[in-house]
Amino acid sequence: MQTYTTQMNAAKQGIITDVMRTVAEKEHMDVELLREKVAKGTVAIPANRNHLSIDPEGVGEGLRTKMNVNLGISKDCNDPEMELEKVRVALDMGVEAIMDLSNYGKTEQFRKELIKMSGAMIGTVPVYDVFGFFEKELKDVRPEDFLAMVRKHGEDGVDFVTIHAGMNKRASETFLENPRLMNLVSRGGSLMFAWMRLTGYDNPYFEYFDDLLDICAEFDITLSLGDACRPGGLADSTDASQIQELITLGELTKRAWAKDVQVIIEGPGHMSMDEIKANVLLEKKLCHGAPFYVLGPLVTDVAPGYDHITGAIGGAIAASAGADFLCYVTPAEHLRLPTVEDMKEGIIATKIAAHAADIAKKTPHARDWDNQMSKARVDLDWNRMFELAIDPTKARAYREHAELEDETTCSMCGKMCAILNVKEALK
Amino acid sequence: MQTYTTQMNAAKQGIITDVMRTVAEKEHMDVELLREKVAKGTVAIPANRNHLSIDPEGVGEGLRTKMNVNLGISKDCNDPEMELEKVRVALDMGVEAIMDLSNYGKTEQFRKELIKMSGAMIGTVPVYDVFGFFEKELKDVRPEDFLAMVRKHGEDGVDFVTIHAGMNKRASETFLENPRLMNLVSRGGSLMFAWMRLTGYDNPYFEYFDDLLDICAEFDITLSLGDACRPGGLADSTDASQIQELITLGELTKRAWAKDVQVIIEGPGHMSMDEIKANVLLEKKLCHGAPFYVLGPLVTDVAPGYDHITGAIGGAIAASAGADFLCYVTPAEHLRLPTVEDMKEGIIATKIAAHAADIAKKTPHARDWDNQMSKARVDLDWNRMFELAIDPTKARAYREHAELEDETTCSMCGKMCAILNVKEALK
Repeated sequence: MQTYTTQMNAAKQGIITDVMRTVAEKEHMDVELLREKVAKGTVAIPANRNHLSIDPEGVGEGLRTKMNVNLGISKDCNDPEMELEKVRVALDMGVEAIMDLSNYGKTEQFRKELIKMSGAMIGTVPVYDVFGFFEKELKDVRPEDFLAMVRKHGEDGVDFVTIHAGMNKRASETFLENPRLMNLVSRGGSLMFAWMRLTGYDNPYFEYFDDLLDICAEFDITLSLGDACRPGGLADSTDASQIQELITLGELTKRAWAKDVQVIIEGPGHMSMDEIKANVLLEKKLCHGAPFYVLGPLVTDVAPGYDHITGAIGGAIAASAGADFLCYVTPAEHLRLPTVEDMKEGIIATKIAAHAADIAKKTPHARDWDNQMSKARVDLDWNRMFELAIDPTKARAYREHAELEDETTCSMCGKMCAILNVKEALK
Repeated sequence: MQTYTTQMNAAKQGIITDVMRTVAEKEHMDVELLREKVAKGTVAIPANRNHLSIDPEGVGEGLRTKMNVNLGISKDCNDPEMELEKVRVALDMGVEAIMDLSNYGKTEQFRKELIKMSGAMIGTVPVYDVFGFFEKELKDVRPEDFLAMVRKHGEDGVDFVTIHAGMNKRASETFLENPRLMNLVSRGGSLMFAWMRLTGYDNPYFEYFDDLLDICAEFDITLSLGDACRPGGLADSTDASQIQELITLGELTKRAWAKDVQVIIEGPGHMSMDEIKANVLLEKKLCHGAPFYVLGPLVTDVAPGYDHITGAIGGAIAASAGADFLCYVTPAEHLRLPTVEDMKEGIIATKIAAHAADIAKKTPHARDWDNQMSKARVDLDWNRMFELAIDPTKARAYREHAELEDETTCSMCGKMCAILNVKEALK
C-alpha cells in the first residue's frame, strides 16, 4: 500500500520512490541526494499519479537542463491531427515536457490523447481551458470555475499546471502605479487581470490557494507559478511589477511546500543579457531555491523570425546561471502559431542552449558528447560526425550539397585542411 | 600635406583625422576621446590609405560591436561571380568587414575588385595567398615570400591582415609538449607550423616582425594577430598552447604600437560558456587592451548545421564581456563552404549577438531600436514591426502564411491576445 501522497511527501518521510530511482539514474546522481533535494523543494519531479505512461524527469538543482514545447488547439489552429503530429515529432526529438495550451474546441479529448501517448511530462494552463471549455464570456466565469478546471486536469493526469496566483490585488496595484511600455504580455496573467477588473473579485487562485493545494496534493500536480508580469520587452524587465509578483510567488512556494505540493517558478520573458544572472539569483533567493522555468529570455526585441536564436542566447545564459527548465522559443514567436518545421527549429535551438549550459555548469558527463565529436573531427570520420550531430539529417544534407575536391576533407578548406596539414607535419 | 603615417601616428601627434571624425560621429563618441583611444591602441580603425572607397569603422573599446564576413575563391569554389554576389549581399546587409580568404585562382584580380566595390573594411590572410598566388609547394616557399605578399596586399588597399606571428618556435614547442585532442585547427597557423617543420626555419613573420611593421606602417595596414593555437573543440580551450601564444601576441602588440601600427588580436574558437569571460579578460590584460576579434566562440561542438546559433551564444557573451569584433559563423561551418543563403543566416545570427551585447554593455543608443519595436508591438502596428525587424522579409513571410482569426492580432493567441485584453481592461 502506498504510504505517501506526493513525491515531496515521500521524500520528506525518507521514502525513495521508483520515480526518484528512475530520475537519479538518468542524472548520474545518488538517489539519496536526489531525495533530499525533492524534500527541500530544490528539485521537482512532475508526475501525476494518473499519468500512467510517464517516463519521469526531474527539474532543478544539479540536474540536466530540461526543455518544454508548447502546442495545442485554438481557434486559429483547430486541427488536432496536426497538433498530434507535433507531439510525435517533439517526443521523437527527446523533449522532456509538453505544454498543452489548447483553448478552443475539443480540448478535453485532445488533452487525454496527449497524456496517453506521452512519456514526457505534460503541463497545462487551466485558465485557458476555463474559457475554452466552459465557453463563457470573461465576466461570467465564476471563481469556483477556476479551481474546478484544475481538478479536471488533475484527474486527466496533467503533471504540472501554470497558475497565475501572483496576479492578485496587490500585484495589480503595483502594476498600475508603475507604468510599463508593454503592459502585461502573459496571456493567462492578462486574463486574470481583466477578470479581476471586470468582477471586482480578487484572484481566486490566490484567495483559495489552500483549496488549490489540496487538489494538487491529491493528484501530485506540480504547481508552475506563472509570472503575469513577465516583461514583454527589454524596457519593462526587472521592474517593480515583476519583482513584486516574484515576492508573492516566493510566499506561495512556502505554503505549497508546507502541504507537500511541488513547485516550479516561471520567469521572463524579455531582458538584456546583463540582467539575466541577477534575475536567476533573485528567483532562487525569493523563492527559496525552487526550480526556475524560463521563457527565453529574449535578449533583444528586434528579431521576429529569429527568436529561437535570441531565446537560445538568453536561455543558455539563464540555464548556466542556474535556471533549470527552458521553454522553447520558435522562429514563429511574435508572428504566428508555429508549424512543425518551426517547432523543430525551436527544439534544436533550445537543445543547444540547454546543452551548452549543462557543459558550463558542469553537469556530469555533459561534455562527453562534445569530446566524441572532436575525436570524430580530428579523425576526419564523417559518418561518426553525422551520427553524433544534434541533427544528423541537416548535417548530412549540407555536406552532400558541397562539391568536394577531396572526400576526406570538406569544401571549407579543401587541401588546406588544418587537420590534415598538422597530421602530416607531425609524422 | 599629410603630416602623419597611420591613424595611430596621427592620434599620438594629437591630430584628429577625417577618418576619426567619421567614426566618432557614427559611434556618438566625442572625437577627442576617440583620438585618445586610437593613440593608446584600445581602438583600431583599419583603413588602408589605398582603399579609397572605404567608409571607415572603428573596432574597440566603447564602440559598437562590429562584424566580419568571410568569403573568397578557392579550389572547391572557384567562382568569382558567386563570391562577388556574396559581397553585394553582405554590403547590403551592413556588415562592417569582409575577409577575402581566397587561396586559389585569380586571387589578385578578385581582391582588387572587392576593394574597389567595398565601403566595408577588407581583411586578408596573406599566407593563404602565398600558396594560392605563387603556386609553390609548401617546402619551396621562401621566408621573403611571406613578407612580399603582405606588401602586395597593402599596395592593393587591404585594411587588415591576419598574421600568425605567434606560431613561432616557442609556441610550437609548447604545443608539442601539451598534447591536444584536436591539435591545430587554424588554417594559416597550421600552414606556418608545417612550413617550420619542413624547412627548419622560425616563423618569418616573427623573425622579421620589424620589417613587417614597416610594411604595415607604409599603407596603414592594421595587424590582426592570428591565433594559430585557437582551440578546435571544447576539450582544448584555454590550454597552455593557447595562452602561451597569447603572451607572445601581447609582446608583439607593444612592438607594433611602438611603430604606430594598429593591432587587433584574434581569439577562439571553441570553448564552454563559463570560460569566455576569463578569455576576454586574459586577452585584454596580456595584450594591453588591444581590440579583440573572436571567431564564435562556439559553446558546444555537437551542432554542425547550427553553428550560427552556437556561435551567436558565444559571440554575444564574448562581446558583452568586452570582445569588440565578431567573425560571423554560418550554418555551413564544419560542413562546407557557405552559400549565399548560409551567409545571410550567419550574418543575421551574428548581428543578433552583436546587438544583444551592445545593449548589455550599454553602447549609446543601442536600446532605441528595441524600444521602438516594443512600442510597435503594444500598438499592434504590424507594418511598423516589419519595418523595424532585423529581417523584414522573413518576418512578413511568417505572418502571411498564418491564417488569421483577426487582422489586429496574430495566430499565436488570436482573441486571447494579452495586449488587447489589457488595453480593454485598462479603459
